[in-house]
Amino acid sequence: MAKYDVVVLGCGVGGYPVAIKLVQKGYRVAVVEEDQVGGECTNYGCVPSKALYYIARSIEGLSRVVSERASIDPGLLIEWVKSRVIRARDGITYLLERYGVDLYHGHGVVGDRVVKLVSEKSVLETDYVVLATGTDPLVPRGIGVDGEYVVTNREVFYMEPPGSLLVVGAGAIGVELAYSYSMLGVDVYVVEAMPRILPFLDRDVSVSLERFLREKGVRFYKNTLVTKTVRKNGFVEAVLSSGERVVVNRVVVAVGRRPRTTGIGVEELGVRLDSKGYVELSRAYYTSVPWILASGDITGPPLLAHKAFLDALGVVESIVSGKAVKPKPESIPLTIFSGLEVASIGYTEEELRRRGVEYRRIRMPIAYLSAVSIKGGEYGFVKVLVGREDSVYGVHLVAPNASEVVSSFIPYYIGVLGFSDAKHIAYPHLTVSEVVREFAEYLLGEPVHLYIRK
Amino acid sequence: MAKYDVVVLGCGVGGYPVAIKLVQKGYRVAVVEEDQVGGECTNYGCVPSKALYYIARSIEGLSRVVSERASIDPGLLIEWVKSRVIRARDGITYLLERYGVDLYHGHGVVGDRVVKLVSEKSVLETDYVVLATGTDPLVPRGIGVDGEYVVTNREVFYMEPPGSLLVVGAGAIGVELAYSYSMLGVDVYVVEAMPRILPFLDRDVSVSLERFLREKGVRFYKNTLVTKTVRKNGFVEAVLSSGERVVVNRVVVAVGRRPRTTGIGVEELGVRLDSKGYVELSRAYYTSVPWILASGDITGPPLLAHKAFLDALGVVESIVSGKAVKPKPESIPLTIFSGLEVASIGYTEEELRRRGVEYRRIRMPIAYLSAVSIKGGEYGFVKVLVGREDSVYGVHLVAPNASEVVSSFIPYYIGVLGFSDAKHIAYPHLTVSEVVREFAEYLLGEPVHLYIRK
Repeated sequence: MAKYDVVVLGCGVGGYPVAIKLVQKGYRVAVVEEDQVGGECTNYGCVPSKALYYIARSIEGLSRVVSERASIDPGLLIEWVKSRVIRARDGITYLLERYGVDLYHGHGVVGDRVVKLVSEKSVLETDYVVLATGTDPLVPRGIGVDGEYVVTNREVFYMEPPGSLLVVGAGAIGVELAYSYSMLGVDVYVVEAMPRILPFLDRDVSVSLERFLREKGVRFYKNTLVTKTVRKNGFVEAVLSSGERVVVNRVVVAVGRRPRTTGIGVEELGVRLDSKGYVELSRAYYTSVPWILASGDITGPPLLAHKAFLDALGVVESIVSGKAVKPKPESIPLTIFSGLEVASIGYTEEELRRRGVEYRRIRMPIAYLSAVSIKGGEYGFVKVLVGREDSVYGVHLVAPNASEVVSSFIPYYIGVLGFSDAKHIAYPHLTVSEVVREFAEYLLGEPVHLYIRK
Repeated sequence: MAKYDVVVLGCGVGGYPVAIKLVQKGYRVAVVEEDQVGGECTNYGCVPSKALYYIARSIEGLSRVVSERASIDPGLLIEWVKSRVIRARDGITYLLERYGVDLYHGHGVVGDRVVKLVSEKSVLETDYVVLATGTDPLVPRGIGVDGEYVVTNREVFYMEPPGSLLVVGAGAIGVELAYSYSMLGVDVYVVEAMPRILPFLDRDVSVSLERFLREKGVRFYKNTLVTKTVRKNGFVEAVLSSGERVVVNRVVVAVGRRPRTTGIGVEELGVRLDSKGYVELSRAYYTSVPWILASGDITGPPLLAHKAFLDALGVVESIVSGKAVKPKPESIPLTIFSGLEVASIGYTEEELRRRGVEYRRIRMPIAYLSAVSIKGGEYGFVKVLVGREDSVYGVHLVAPNASEVVSSFIPYYIGVLGFSDAKHIAYPHLTVSEVVREFAEYLLGEPVHLYIRK
């Protein structure tokens, strides 16, 4: 029976960094993975979606100067996406090997200070278990996911772009898919149960994004559910709650996620879960069972790779020194790669009102900036929610490159820089990052590039 | 005779912000411009080159998934570039009008507290003059610039992409042109007098960029001059100092800049110039003549729009409160938009050695990051030059999106964040900005994503 200091269940972004860091510090560590090394992000999320996105952005760029849409070779496209996934996955596998992490393939079930590998009937003894099994796509009953015509993020990036695609759910994943596939020339329909897309974000963000995506040809059904799908002669008919029927080549379901907390032994051991099945954690990443910690998506929203990565580092700190402190969820930037990108840190106006916090809202258009005008940001803006003494409660950025630019707002959000400092910082021309300096001038009441009536 | 508080000579990035800011503060201000509103950056520099670059980047992206190169409509391309320039220019004109800045078109010559408009024979009386006339392209004798076959940045962005192009000079402009035109399918040759391209930058930067551009098909002649050009049947033959002859459709000269300090009356007034003709300035932006200030490229390197903009704000502070302090030139980030982009703040190793400063060099490859692998950054790296107590002397970044990402290094460069803080900052996945956190972990000796032999 193999004996470890720590066994990590799940080899995604919440898991493998725990293993590598602990091995660096001299621990004996194993990782158990039942699917692919790299987890959801590497195989079915960030990596393939951003490989696809890069192509989508390129098509959008080219659309300014070609008379016909660029014609993509679907075989090359899939090969390209796969190549980036394989590269990322192989990188992780290499690191695990070089650092001496034992990697077990198979389904692991946690018992009393052991992890049982079901298929191989072997048992790993361990002092600590770190749960990092992530989430599965949530699939509503009756929607008929078959992995071929009606798919989830598990299949969508590996299939040829269909002629038409219905996206169920206008959350981050749904909106990203809608943008990328519409750029590839696919007829895209989006069905969203709520009255607006990206309902968890600032309301202005939803409005701008919907306008932008409509212009790209995406059609929206809001306040609407897909009640069932019917496969018909190679097509899929989606029946909507309105009674309407939409016939498309493929349907992709992206209505939410479900934590993988069942079937891995944790309920039996008394690991406390919340009402949605996510693991409840102490500030030091411990579950209610004193030798079980958890990391990544399984610990609840925001379900983001960079949050999972911070979790992983926190788990390591906790095991090594007992001193880790979980960051506040709202301090994790949220990014949506949707052409006109969305990036958000901190609270939305809705959240501040709910909490009864007083704030000032400063919203500035950004389309006048040349970097934005070149990269397509007509509907872009930055909105900052400011408290007393210019503390920053929230930054909401809708802009090309927002996913990169939001990092330049972090120092202002965490308070190591104030906006009066920004005036003296030479954010390079011609970049979207100039929005930081522009916003600072706007906030201070003397923008060069906007006319303000006195 | 019109009477102003301040007359600004030149309506580029060094000039128009001075006018707008001063008018906002109640001053009577005129701007005199002899060419186009917006100056070099808007008309012949940043804006058209980045409009072109956006297309070039898009072609590079698409090259992963198409079997043939995308075919650009040259008419649409020129229209696109022009449209971005016109938009930027019109924006500035609108602001000047709305804020009530008087704009005079024509050649202005400074006299004793006056600016004479040569063509209109009118005279503007003024308390202060701000020189912001910028630079012209430096054209070596005998190279035969004719504005048609042998051109400079003044013409190149408005001509149809030629079949082949010889770029004279591998500085920032030359390298940007080489990248963009090579992506457009143009056969590009680059001739550089020095032994390496981008000779003023970190040596490793030159090596990576040359490798990257060679891979894109760019051919280099280093340690070489163009001694003359000869027009022949619609082609141009460039004679190199090696004796070799290169026959191309067009030649573009980008060997340097020459300040526009002659013919504007400043020598007559005793404004002190340096050996290269740039205006010498006090720390408060004053020339040697007590009522003449200066801003932008005319004040010397770095010749960058964001430096000119800071100058303009500084000039305003100086006039209004007398308290402006020029930033150190090395604190201005330098960016090169070359596909694999370059961004640099602070000193190079060469400069530190020359100054006898002790430093540690930490250089990290970045190709393993998925954002970099997707966007094409095989030869990318980050190199940080660190002094005592982890003070940062220089950051040299070669990466896709480096122009945006460098802004995330600024807080570390100016010392409001230390790299030990970066471990706790959730730079979003999947972005190139993650390089900041990755670098911090590498510096601290425990990277997750790189194998370090013990």
